[in-house]
Amino acid sequence: ADDSNLIRATLFPGDGIGPEIAESVKEVFRTADVPIEWEEHYVGQEIDPRTQSFLTWESLESVRRNKVGLKGPMATPIGKGHRSLNLTLRKELNLYANVRPCYSLPGYKTRYDDVDLITIRENTEGEYSGLEHQVVRGVVESLKIITRQASLRVAEYAFHYAKSHGRERVSAIHKANIMQKTDGLFLKCCREVAEKYPEIKYEEVIIDNCCMMLVRNPALFDVLVMPNLYGDIISDLCAGLIGGLGLTPSCNIGEGGIALAEAVHGSAPDIAGKNLANPTALLLSAVTMLRHLKLHDKAERIQAAILNTIAEGKYRTADLGGSSSTTDFTKAICDHL
Amino acid sequence: ADDSNLIRATLFPGDGIGPEIAESVKEVFRTADVPIEWEEHYVGQEIDPRTQSFLTWESLESVRRNKVGLKGPMATPIGKGHRSLNLTLRKELNLYANVRPCYSLPGYKTRYDDVDLITIRENTEGEYSGLEHQVVRGVVESLKIITRQASLRVAEYAFHYAKSHGRERVSAIHKANIMQKTDGLFLKCCREVAEKYPEIKYEEVIIDNCCMMLVRNPALFDVLVMPNLYGDIISDLCAGLIGGLGLTPSCNIGEGGIALAEAVHGSAPDIAGKNLANPTALLLSAVTMLRHLKLHDKAERIQAAILNTIAEGKYRTADLGGSSSTTDFTKAICDHL
Ligand SMILES: CC(C)[C@H](C(=O)O)[C@@H](O)C(=O)O
Ligand SMILES: CC(C)[C@H](C(=O)O)[C@@H](O)C(=O)O
Repeated sequence: ADDSNLIRATLFPGDGIGPEIAESVKEVFRTADVPIEWEEHYVGQEIDPRTQSFLTWESLESVRRNKVGLKGPMATPIGKGHRSLNLTLRKELNLYANVRPCYSLPGYKTRYDDVDLITIRENTEGEYSGLEHQVVRGVVESLKIITRQASLRVAEYAFHYAKSHGRERVSAIHKANIMQKTDGLFLKCCREVAEKYPEIKYEEVIIDNCCMMLVRNPALFDVLVMPNLYGDIISDLCAGLIGGLGLTPSCNIGEGGIALAEAVHGSAPDIAGKNLANPTALLLSAVTMLRHLKLHDKAERIQAAILNTIAEGKYRTADLGGSSSTTDFTKAICDHL
Repeated sequence: ADDSNLIRATLFPGDGIGPEIAESVKEVFRTADVPIEWEEHYVGQEIDPRTQSFLTWESLESVRRNKVGLKGPMATPIGKGHRSLNLTLRKELNLYANVRPCYSLPGYKTRYDDVDLITIRENTEGEYSGLEHQVVRGVVESLKIITRQASLRVAEYAFHYAKSHGRERVSAIHKANIMQKTDGLFLKCCREVAEKYPEIKYEEVIIDNCCMMLVRNPALFDVLVMPNLYGDIISDLCAGLIGGLGLTPSCNIGEGGIALAEAVHGSAPDIAGKNLANPTALLLSAVTMLRHLKLHDKAERIQAAILNTIAEGKYRTADLGGSSSTTDFTKAICDHL
């Protein structure tokens, strides 16, 4: 590829197993001739002794400039008063929607074989306001904030996503029978947006009922959109249906067209540096990044290579019951390309 | 049985299928010679034209006096400004803990066959405070309230339950990494109580992770205790694992030793009066009431008769794939007694 045509993308390998699985992505992208040039920055738990920084201005600027990036797992800095770096990135980059496609992996058996869902989570407000308060000793309160602006924004994203990905239905998940004002406003915004998309079916499902339906028959759902905490809960529940966070891609969408894909699993310090980590979640996240860049051919080819490698079952990492190393699994994917 | 030895218990048959499934409980209790005399009151959606009442003082007094009761499904009154009757009962009777045993029914296949959990939900505060507020147009907030008193009370109940039911472990479910003050206080209270029960293992699990673990391997859990909304979500998720709300018992514990058992499914107006309803959830709830009354022999016998009838599979209602009527299913249970 001619250098001038290269797309610059930010890469935060992160902590623990992060560097190994990021290496896997780089290797697979090289093999597939993906026209991306990585701008790599360290963001994570290991403090820079001179600057005392966990997160540099340059890292944030890199994402803002490139508008596209990939992040590995980041451990929360140890000690008091440190917020999770994930939350800081969400806030600084205004990553308002977290999108998690969740589908059964062919050949990897769980109790469910019919999962094909997209969870879209409002990522900036709700129960994550950070506003808490002790009223008197023994009585504390947390504020959940819902705004029209953020609700419309994520609803708009969800319907746009459904339409552009050939999906049929959007379900808004809520507890408006109890939180009539906050979740009520969220639903009102979803309804407003739904009217602009008459070709997409729209329904509203109460969160407790939604969880029961999901574990009984996940095929009842298509695209789900919801406030922050419900999204946190339901996206993990859905990941559980297909085998856990090690297998599910995630992408954060920010204002101004930013897309920051990420593996949402932990940094697994116990196996870090041992060439044992499963790079699947980061690889599939990188695929969502390619789709965002409209590099659909590359995305399809790489996704097929990953899924075929897992389906064949010859090369699997330990978490999937195999005994392959990260590098062998990666090589098997590259051989499929 | 000699009348003077009869235990008086309140019965709210409720709406829709309520009267039919309540009839089933009465029939089974008669057959098993349970020394209970029912005090029946109508609480529900059908307004009394003279008093305009959905819920009478006498109904509440009956539970307060008897300290034990059973309720069927109640529909929320139609029209503006009516709270759910369930919530009103929780509030009026100070029903602070909702206990839901959730176990796989032998012979009734779902994707899970190893479920045996107890969810214990704080039932009076948290996200259900009812305190909501529009800050400015397009910005609304809900208050989640956690108190030391209610948290200690439900934690105490959970550990006491675990100990007296031969359970090994209590898991407190939370999101204290985000809601450090509210969920943090809840955890602090659980830890305090845990210290008084050194024989019971104690752990803390973040709600999103808990949901993922539950759908992957429910056997990882034993007794779960949690704030109101998480309890609402997780108890329904757990019900989904074993076949839905039509099969899961529930019991509410109130101050002063009140126990109000209830079927948590809906009133199913579409099949009401057709002798099609499945009385299992109300029957198993009635069994938890017997346990509360320390009528353990009766409880065991009746529970075995219900489970055996379902396991045999000859008499099952339509929701379980059979074609039995409510009365035939009930008769089959009585024949087992
Ligand atoms: C680590 C935690 C703060 C985070 C969240 O609650 O959002 C995580 O669960 C996630 O889903 O990314
Ligand atoms: C009907 C509704 C208000 C109620 C709740 O949210 O508590 C229900 O879901 C339950 O679990 O009893």
